Amino acid sequence: MGNKAELDFVSWLRNQTTPKPWVTVGPGDDTAVLSLPTNKPCLVTSDMLLDGSCFILAEAGAQRVGRKAMNVNLSDIAAMAGIPHAALVSLALPRNGGKNLAQQLFNGIKQAADLFDTAIVGGDTNSWNGPLAISITLLGYPGPKGPILRSTAKPGDALLITGQLGGSILGKHLDFNPRIAEAQLLSQLTNLSSMIDLSDGLALDLHRLCAESKCGATLFADQIPIAEAAFQMNDDKTPLEHALGDGEDFELLFSLPAIEAQQLLKDQPLQGLRITQIGEISKDGLFIQEKGRKLPLEALGYIHQFD
Amino acid sequence: MGNKAELDFVSWLRNQTTPKPWVTVGPGDDTAVLSLPTNKPCLVTSDMLLDGSCFILAEAGAQRVGRKAMNVNLSDIAAMAGIPHAALVSLALPRNGGKNLAQQLFNGIKQAADLFDTAIVGGDTNSWNGPLAISITLLGYPGPKGPILRSTAKPGDALLITGQLGGSILGKHLDFNPRIAEAQLLSQLTNLSSMIDLSDGLALDLHRLCAESKCGATLFADQIPIAEAAFQMNDDKTPLEHALGDGEDFELLFSLPAIEAQQLLKDQPLQGLRITQIGEISKDGLFIQEKGRKLPLEALGYIHQFD
Repeated sequence: MGNKAELDFVSWLRNQTTPKPWVTVGPGDDTAVLSLPTNKPCLVTSDMLLDGSCFILAEAGAQRVGRKAMNVNLSDIAAMAGIPHAALVSLALPRNGGKNLAQQLFNGIKQAADLFDTAIVGGDTNSWNGPLAISITLLGYPGPKGPILRSTAKPGDALLITGQLGGSILGKHLDFNPRIAEAQLLSQLTNLSSMIDLSDGLALDLHRLCAESKCGATLFADQIPIAEAAFQMNDDKTPLEHALGDGEDFELLFSLPAIEAQQLLKDQPLQGLRITQIGEISKDGLFIQEKGRKLPLEALGYIHQFD
Repeated sequence: MGNKAELDFVSWLRNQTTPKPWVTVGPGDDTAVLSLPTNKPCLVTSDMLLDGSCFILAEAGAQRVGRKAMNVNLSDIAAMAGIPHAALVSLALPRNGGKNLAQQLFNGIKQAADLFDTAIVGGDTNSWNGPLAISITLLGYPGPKGPILRSTAKPGDALLITGQLGGSILGKHLDFNPRIAEAQLLSQLTNLSSMIDLSDGLALDLHRLCAESKCGATLFADQIPIAEAAFQMNDDKTPLEHALGDGEDFELLFSLPAIEAQQLLKDQPLQGLRITQIGEISKDGLFIQEKGRKLPLEALGYIHQFD
């Protein structure tokens, strides 16, 4: 390709991006310049996805990987009941075939961004002798009730989730839908006391939510909606264990006053997506109640390991 | 380390970060929540640094690499005459020794961030079987005169730089000082018409500035301040060629009305950092004037190459 490759790719990218009124300066200057909604805080999150760890590029295909990289960030904004508006995309591309790969990745990234009216305003394109790495940063702002935090669950609150859990490795981890609109609606209809997206497994993410909220929780094992995929996993774990421990379902886990939960469960306002009560927030201790027995809930789930 | 490593590292990181009044929610929730200055646009930039390409970890050491990763982003905010305030740090760590490496990197990142009152508000920590990759996103806001763009240079303007150029690979590329305060002062004292930081070499970055501004420029070869390091490079390039083509000087290249430039050059208001006029903006064409001859200026410089 010669020396002009990066410049060419930046101009290609600039032609692909849709102008948005809140983007004063998009890709091509030293920084992007954004006009944020006045009197709203700024929500900002970054996720990095790595070939061989968060996806297998050769199996998934670049466009699907690009879509996932954007969607995991969108899911974080959803978990705050936020509205996304601008993203920066940084790529470490393998030296051979990097330009074609970048365009396919970007097609997937743009596909996910466009669904949620999110502008791609900048980033950084690099090539190296390592595998593909994608880092996306997403900016957004909260809805009318402000951001819904992990740290504000209250003892006595009901604990609910959207959708079904487990076995996402069979496909959902690449093709999930970030729950942006659903989180907005839940936040409008009820007084959510806390929310988190399920990225590393129900048990581990519930541990995190309870640690931040300085509370406990009890899960009702027989009420956890287990995805069909969890039954197809064909390993030594039970479907329930998959629902508790598998990462990347990207559903919402949230708490709200018990009386509001009853109404919400009756109304089921999310089109095509069931809301289920799976437990309740308590003062302390994490437990799972199964066939009349109450057992400690281990923090199963996916954590990146270092030495 | 076992499964708790990531959680441990996040809590270590949370204890290391200094609370800032504009950070409503820092690391540990699904997104950070920031209170930005009202009625100011948001500046946002991302840079990704890769082992073996942007640095050699084994030679430079992790703390220095961390500092560089933050400083290249600070330099982009400087190029807009902006004030930085919050950063997100994403790491792809080699699986062996990743935790210790992460802490050293973070020490360097924090050192650079603290110098410019910048909070570290989030990010993503991953481990893999690849080399170290660091992606930092930096948010900031412009000074009283708004952001200084690349796209607003005007024919007749004088073209100036801070500092000296060339040979940064001998050390400066790791240990440079981002010109945040200098850019603020320049923006206050004069009517800057455009600015860019010199990350990929004077000739290439001038090409970029002129392309964005739809103008041309002429460099005065004998006025370009050449760094001592450019004379020590000991290869087949002249010191001037190093000053024109070497990347990562991270000095400011800027334009302003010629009459203001005269006063600025006389006043030399930047403590310990010389300002030099190196050329002028024209209607079109990029040239370098050397010993009475005017030659086309090639877009020498560093570009990541793909196939």
